[in-house]
Amino acid sequence: MDSRIFKERSSVNDTRDRFLAAIKPLDRTENITICEGVGRVLATGILAPRNVPHYRRSAMDGYAVRSADIMGASPTNPVILQIGDGIDEGTCCPVGTGAYVPDDADAVLMTEDTICIGDMIEVRAQVHPGKNIGDIGEDVRKNEIIFNRGHLLRPCDVAVLASLGIREVKVYSRAVVAVIPTGNDLIPLDSSSEVPPPGKTLDINSLMIGLYVRQWGAQPRCCPIVPEDRELIKKAISENMDADFIVISGGTSVGEKDYVPDVLASMGEKLVHGVGLSPGKPTALGVIGEIPVLCMPGYPAAGLVALFAFGKPAIRKKGNIPQIPDITVKARLTGKINSREGYVSYARVILEGNTARPLMTAGAGILSSIAKSNGFVIIPENVEGYEEGNEVDVVLIE
Amino acid sequence: MDSRIFKERSSVNDTRDRFLAAIKPLDRTENITICEGVGRVLATGILAPRNVPHYRRSAMDGYAVRSADIMGASPTNPVILQIGDGIDEGTCCPVGTGAYVPDDADAVLMTEDTICIGDMIEVRAQVHPGKNIGDIGEDVRKNEIIFNRGHLLRPCDVAVLASLGIREVKVYSRAVVAVIPTGNDLIPLDSSSEVPPPGKTLDINSLMIGLYVRQWGAQPRCCPIVPEDRELIKKAISENMDADFIVISGGTSVGEKDYVPDVLASMGEKLVHGVGLSPGKPTALGVIGEIPVLCMPGYPAAGLVALFAFGKPAIRKKGNIPQIPDITVKARLTGKINSREGYVSYARVILEGNTARPLMTAGAGILSSIAKSNGFVIIPENVEGYEEGNEVDVVLIE
Repeated sequence: MDSRIFKERSSVNDTRDRFLAAIKPLDRTENITICEGVGRVLATGILAPRNVPHYRRSAMDGYAVRSADIMGASPTNPVILQIGDGIDEGTCCPVGTGAYVPDDADAVLMTEDTICIGDMIEVRAQVHPGKNIGDIGEDVRKNEIIFNRGHLLRPCDVAVLASLGIREVKVYSRAVVAVIPTGNDLIPLDSSSEVPPPGKTLDINSLMIGLYVRQWGAQPRCCPIVPEDRELIKKAISENMDADFIVISGGTSVGEKDYVPDVLASMGEKLVHGVGLSPGKPTALGVIGEIPVLCMPGYPAAGLVALFAFGKPAIRKKGNIPQIPDITVKARLTGKINSREGYVSYARVILEGNTARPLMTAGAGILSSIAKSNGFVIIPENVEGYEEGNEVDVVLIE
Repeated sequence: MDSRIFKERSSVNDTRDRFLAAIKPLDRTENITICEGVGRVLATGILAPRNVPHYRRSAMDGYAVRSADIMGASPTNPVILQIGDGIDEGTCCPVGTGAYVPDDADAVLMTEDTICIGDMIEVRAQVHPGKNIGDIGEDVRKNEIIFNRGHLLRPCDVAVLASLGIREVKVYSRAVVAVIPTGNDLIPLDSSSEVPPPGKTLDINSLMIGLYVRQWGAQPRCCPIVPEDRELIKKAISENMDADFIVISGGTSVGEKDYVPDVLASMGEKLVHGVGLSPGKPTALGVIGEIPVLCMPGYPAAGLVALFAFGKPAIRKKGNIPQIPDITVKARLTGKINSREGYVSYARVILEGNTARPLMTAGAGILSSIAKSNGFVIIPENVEGYEEGNEVDVVLIE
């Protein structure tokens, strides 16, 4: 037994930078159909296998014409054309937006510039050759690079791939994230929905971490609860050396049985233990071989903050998924927020219209603070807090 | 055949407001397990079925003590306590964060305020009664409202529900969104990956709309392609009167065969046809009974803009899903963006670091503009455009 305290305390930004720098994105790939593609990341660049359009295409609803036939046409000097199925001198052919423009036409006249009279039109404007016609390959040229390696596929991209006749793509595999809960007081969630015995806590962190991992594009692997025992923790980590990332929940504090950071140091490299993050100070981070390991506090609110601050960017980097900014909204504080000197503080707030009401989170009010808040105000280390009435950025809790 | 033009042109904000006002959120519900709950919306409020904590819980790693035993303790005047399994005069009991605090203890002393000597500790600080103890129900009181009806479940909320022993929740059903593609030039995507014949276009819009609908929390129902025929369009709509929302792609322009808005007007109420939106002007919106109907242009880029501007908020409202702000980033334009007078313009840009490069989208360059851009700069009606060097908000294309 010892009475260690956190002698060092790393800054949040340094910690994140060091952790991310130690992470090598995975290079495992798989082929998937484009319909499964949303949220996946291309493992190869994509060249257009054909021209788009692959025919001369009308850019307007109107009439395909020979521009020479209507040269000089105007409202006061209209030209009459016959509507037909093909194009010949003095004839025209109705075309919708996107439709095939017959070979002998060299322009499309907008419907708005015509008056239709039976099977004839009165043309009230002239057009230049090429007007309102999309040439073959105008949009996408065959062999042009459409997407680069590393591109995160959106629904609109899937549609683009489909239009090029591409039905399968090679993407990076989802990072497998092993989630290891530790703690002698934990009992598995699925054991029962009854009230746990006094001193026993349901392991809700594994569920929460797993759901976020999935939301961030990776594949969670939820492992059994590990008692607070050095060898058993070591064994649990060893059994997951085939994973791409390990998150250990609990056992990071300076209590007598908090072996996790020591085990991490003995098996690989402990980069940081003790971060200027509030809540979330007892976070530890490191790597074992090529596997990043995030040891987060077992306290749900602290664990959640550590997961957002370090887990999200790290899991995304491991999985080759581009970082996306958080959703933030501006709001005016309806009360003061204090922060802890030397710490980046994640203050929980309730957004109500364009105001943010700080949640009083005295004591262990952690569960309810998560449930009731919808955003964080992130207070930098060098700021003492914010006053009532201050305009702040609120990061929505996803 | 006629030569209608858009005599009216509704503003984007008015159109959105009128469309949203006409939408009644669905009240169909279903029971799901909490593990399927992320992204779903509670159809009932949730009361806490029990206290959290349900036992007196330590807020720190340390020792449960009787505060009277260590009154006056300090570094210069330490008190020695015996470590035991229970609490008695002069004894203490090690507790981790979250652990059960024995009934006879009235405070928890932080590890940092002690020095451990074999089976004794030297206590170097006093504590007040109640210090570092979370009382029963301190976090969540039994029968307290935890979530209101209409709450969108996040992973952290699922964890909160789990901790309360709740394993199933009643949520609103996902809105069923029928997606009806129209157009004589369309051929189904699944027909082949070969180049379509000249004048024929693969129906990529259904796929794209379906994927966005899913992303916005609803359930797409992709319908067969409908030729440009008044009766067939009517029939396709009639066959989907059991859906919660209808999106019709194509057939909204003023070309001769664009029957969709007329059919909408004949079957229900056409609210708007012709919007000051660029691209996306030929959008029509209305309701048939309680079913909102969005008729969007068949041109993919225009359709996409109409879908973002009107479909997203409307589909979310129908499905009881709270509106969430778009992800926006500030960037400096590397070139001028022009807008169309009287129109809200969605200019596509490529974000590169903190600059935004406008995409030149001359001609029908629509597919490539979607693939290559990652954001929209939305230019209000009363703004002529933005100059090179202007700082603008870029909405990320999801």
